Amino acid sequence: MKVILYMAMTVNGYIARENDETPWSDIEWESFTEMIKKVGNYVMGRRTYETSLKAGVFPYPCLSIVMTKEPIENKWGDQVIFTDKSPQDVLKLLGEKGFDTAFVGGGGQINASFMKENLVDEIYLDIEPLVFGKGIKLFADADFEAKLELIGTQQLSENEIQLHYRVKK
Amino acid sequence: MKVILYMAMTVNGYIARENDETPWSDIEWESFTEMIKKVGNYVMGRRTYETSLKAGVFPYPCLSIVMTKEPIENKWGDQVIFTDKSPQDVLKLLGEKGFDTAFVGGGGQINASFMKENLVDEIYLDIEPLVFGKGIKLFADADFEAKLELIGTQQLSENEIQLHYRVKK
Repeated sequence: MKVILYMAMTVNGYIARENDETPWSDIEWESFTEMIKKVGNYVMGRRTYETSLKAGVFPYPCLSIVMTKEPIENKWGDQVIFTDKSPQDVLKLLGEKGFDTAFVGGGGQINASFMKENLVDEIYLDIEPLVFGKGIKLFADADFEAKLELIGTQQLSENEIQLHYRVKK
Repeated sequence: MKVILYMAMTVNGYIARENDETPWSDIEWESFTEMIKKVGNYVMGRRTYETSLKAGVFPYPCLSIVMTKEPIENKWGDQVIFTDKSPQDVLKLLGEKGFDTAFVGGGGQINASFMKENLVDEIYLDIEPLVFGKGIKLFADADFEAKLELIGTQQLSENEIQLHYRVKK
């Protein structure tokens, strides 16, 4: 199972303000949704689910896997799975559903849990032209390091650049 | 006074490991030292001074301004100034010495103190192909936000990219 991690963030690595706001651009949003459509699934944490719900962008145009320790009632039918499975078992589940690629996209806790288990193969980072003095980190604090290879860069707009990395295994 | 902030960091915004280690590349180091030579000065904090000392790279080939609340004995003569001045007053001092540009380069506390006062004009970020699960942030936690304009990008090596921003005022 190939695992892609995709996030937009400030230049200093924050994926949201402390209050979960993500003032990114429409162009970034288009790039993001295009990718989840292509992959066909989106693995996220409970907080990202709730933020998406509040922002009116949930459900996403793909299968959404919401990783949560707290049970959540599923009003969405087959297009959403709430699960307390581990990262490895979420990937197994996606494999059983016929996917060969998993899309992981926040928040910091979920991102770190996949990185810590060395499960991520590629990272896309849309660098927004912003600095936050505080915020929610791309990866919640965890004991790991990873080496990357820069696969490519793409200018999304005048001030936004996308960096695309392979994680060295 | 034009203020340039220049740092190397991991893709997730850490300018060092928690123990101050900065396992960056020689190419990054060359780019950094070329810039301080060009500008002629380097404003840093006490911790960056001590880390530079330990790494055997101090003194730098330019005027070094070390911002510190604790008095430090100056064994270096005219090429180093230890000062407890504010960011504004450090810039004034550099102006009096004939500089039209100030180079600010770490650590996170000093970087944040200049950003918080809206004193930074340009930011250079050398993005190292690394992720740290924990580390020292580009900007220590502070209450500010800044909007940027992407001036340019430069590939420093196969896996390292430099992002160059203007800070919107």
